[in-house]
Amino acid sequence: MLPADRLRYEQVAITLGAHVANPVLVELTRGTLIESVHRGAVAISDARGKIVFALGDIAPPVYPRSALKPIQALPLAESGAADAFGIGDEEIALACASHSGEPMHTRRVASWLQRLGLGERDLACGIHPVRYEPVAEEMIVRGEKPTRIHNNCSGKHTGFLTVARHWNIATAGYERHEHPVQQAVAKTIGELSGIADELPWGVDGCAAPNFAVSLAAFARALAQFGDTENLPSERARAVRRIFQAMTKHPELVAGTGRMCTLLMLAGHGRIAVKTGAEGVYAGIVPELKLGIALKIDDGAGRAAETAIAFLLDRMNLLDRKEARDLIYTPIRNTRDAIVGERRPAAALAQVPKLQ
Amino acid sequence: MLPADRLRYEQVAITLGAHVANPVLVELTRGTLIESVHRGAVAISDARGKIVFALGDIAPPVYPRSALKPIQALPLAESGAADAFGIGDEEIALACASHSGEPMHTRRVASWLQRLGLGERDLACGIHPVRYEPVAEEMIVRGEKPTRIHNNCSGKHTGFLTVARHWNIATAGYERHEHPVQQAVAKTIGELSGIADELPWGVDGCAAPNFAVSLAAFARALAQFGDTENLPSERARAVRRIFQAMTKHPELVAGTGRMCTLLMLAGHGRIAVKTGAEGVYAGIVPELKLGIALKIDDGAGRAAETAIAFLLDRMNLLDRKEARDLIYTPIRNTRDAIVGERRPAAALAQVPKLQ
Repeated sequence: MLPADRLRYEQVAITLGAHVANPVLVELTRGTLIESVHRGAVAISDARGKIVFALGDIAPPVYPRSALKPIQALPLAESGAADAFGIGDEEIALACASHSGEPMHTRRVASWLQRLGLGERDLACGIHPVRYEPVAEEMIVRGEKPTRIHNNCSGKHTGFLTVARHWNIATAGYERHEHPVQQAVAKTIGELSGIADELPWGVDGCAAPNFAVSLAAFARALAQFGDTENLPSERARAVRRIFQAMTKHPELVAGTGRMCTLLMLAGHGRIAVKTGAEGVYAGIVPELKLGIALKIDDGAGRAAETAIAFLLDRMNLLDRKEARDLIYTPIRNTRDAIVGERRPAAALAQVPKLQ
Repeated sequence: MLPADRLRYEQVAITLGAHVANPVLVELTRGTLIESVHRGAVAISDARGKIVFALGDIAPPVYPRSALKPIQALPLAESGAADAFGIGDEEIALACASHSGEPMHTRRVASWLQRLGLGERDLACGIHPVRYEPVAEEMIVRGEKPTRIHNNCSGKHTGFLTVARHWNIATAGYERHEHPVQQAVAKTIGELSGIADELPWGVDGCAAPNFAVSLAAFARALAQFGDTENLPSERARAVRRIFQAMTKHPELVAGTGRMCTLLMLAGHGRIAVKTGAEGVYAGIVPELKLGIALKIDDGAGRAAETAIAFLLDRMNLLDRKEARDLIYTPIRNTRDAIVGERRPAAALAQVPKLQ
């Protein structure tokens, strides 16, 4: 044990002072205080890359994670693979999904794989617990283990496999960065977002590559799904098909009680949205010809949900009856008493009506 | 649908620019990029309130949440209630615990309640799923529902009940702010932290009041557990007893595989630590006569764990064999491949050895 007078604390006391940071977008209250805050950035862009609204720094590269799925599904819709295998809107919605592992999801993925002459063993994604609790509990009771088909990304992976089968190339290794399917995804992202350089990438939770782009570029890429005027006709048809599949089947894109599903239901076909791990949200708004991309710096999904709901409401895109409940989330204790609230913070709350 | 030219975006585009913020303490990488960052503040204080080390703004009030439990347990140890009911170190450790609902926790709480002539119905905490997964799954298989005894705070609540029984006052309503037990807790916090004013408070997840103090004041209060020189003898005995109970039974303070338990095991009796919801960590270091209090702004427990492990290691308090694994956390995908790392960020990493 060192005596207190031998400590060197005073010599090393550090005052780092103020740090430049993104604005606080979302805050959580408890009692009379703000307990936690979430910082982040938002880009809203048109298809030509004009930023029509921004908060925070939208230039650094971020991983869209699963919010990239509508773009990752584009080779499926565009290459002719979907048509060749008789893939419909439900499967396309699942290719864009982070699904909850409910039977409506897993049965469709299993039957789709079968149609390709493939099975669970061909999926490169790993296994995680089923997200939808009633199903997770039923499986525990029956002694069943989750499979790769229960992975929330199994639809995206089956989409990749469909393209590989259509191109008559090896399906094994389809999740590797150098595989033609992933190279097609990378090329598509570059074309939609106006980036000519090679994209930085990391490995996603499901083992597929995830490509990093700025929020500005990501919002621009998303805007192409809602403004097809300047797209080649095949691509225009494909992005419209993806938007329609997502908005026709919001329950397949996420699941029972999930935010993506609830937002698309409250949008009545006017918006497609997709969440991504580590606090990302993507939005497509065809009637305004805009794409929305946001990322919470600390990766909190709860804050990304509050922020996207608020922005969509400011753009007048949500059903009035449901908007408030999607934006303001009571914090309840274990006795179900309301003890605080998750809500938009000042930087968001000052955003005026955007439509 | 509004035509694009009617949009008012350009008029409302907001550039908020730079914002003052706490430093980034912890970062998560994926591939070649930093994917998410966590900001926060740290105070290390002695028992007289001298701040020997600080990062970020340590003045605003924060809710310690469950990191307050060692202080909330003080009336139990100090009032004579523990001795009157034959309460030993194991129960005192549980009064300081956010336990995982393992049999080692729930059996002891149930038997303690029985000794008071009370039962599960007397606990004011609500019900939440059991944290330790093997137990949660066994209960699902057997069709058992969790009880209030499984609540991670059931030991703290049983401690409150013990004090009420000892004082021969109503146990019903013991969780209310105005109840003498909670008023004793508030008074204790004020005395330990040197605050004369009434403390702001909110309702915790378990329905008990949680009192807000600055990180500076909280660190000072914690330091009293490790430097009893200036405390009245009853209080000195009580804080030493709490420190000893926590360090003798690290597995009762949290549970199998939990960070508090692992840190105290790696500290070999030299430190007591306690996590709190929304990114709080408390530490007691008697050999340096110091208290440590930190809060991650966004409430992320993962970041609080990295930060406290790093700081304890910089103070040379952790077993060398285990320190690295507690500080650097690989991020794995669903196929168990390492795809990134959670680690101290620059503001922490530049902190020199503190002992």
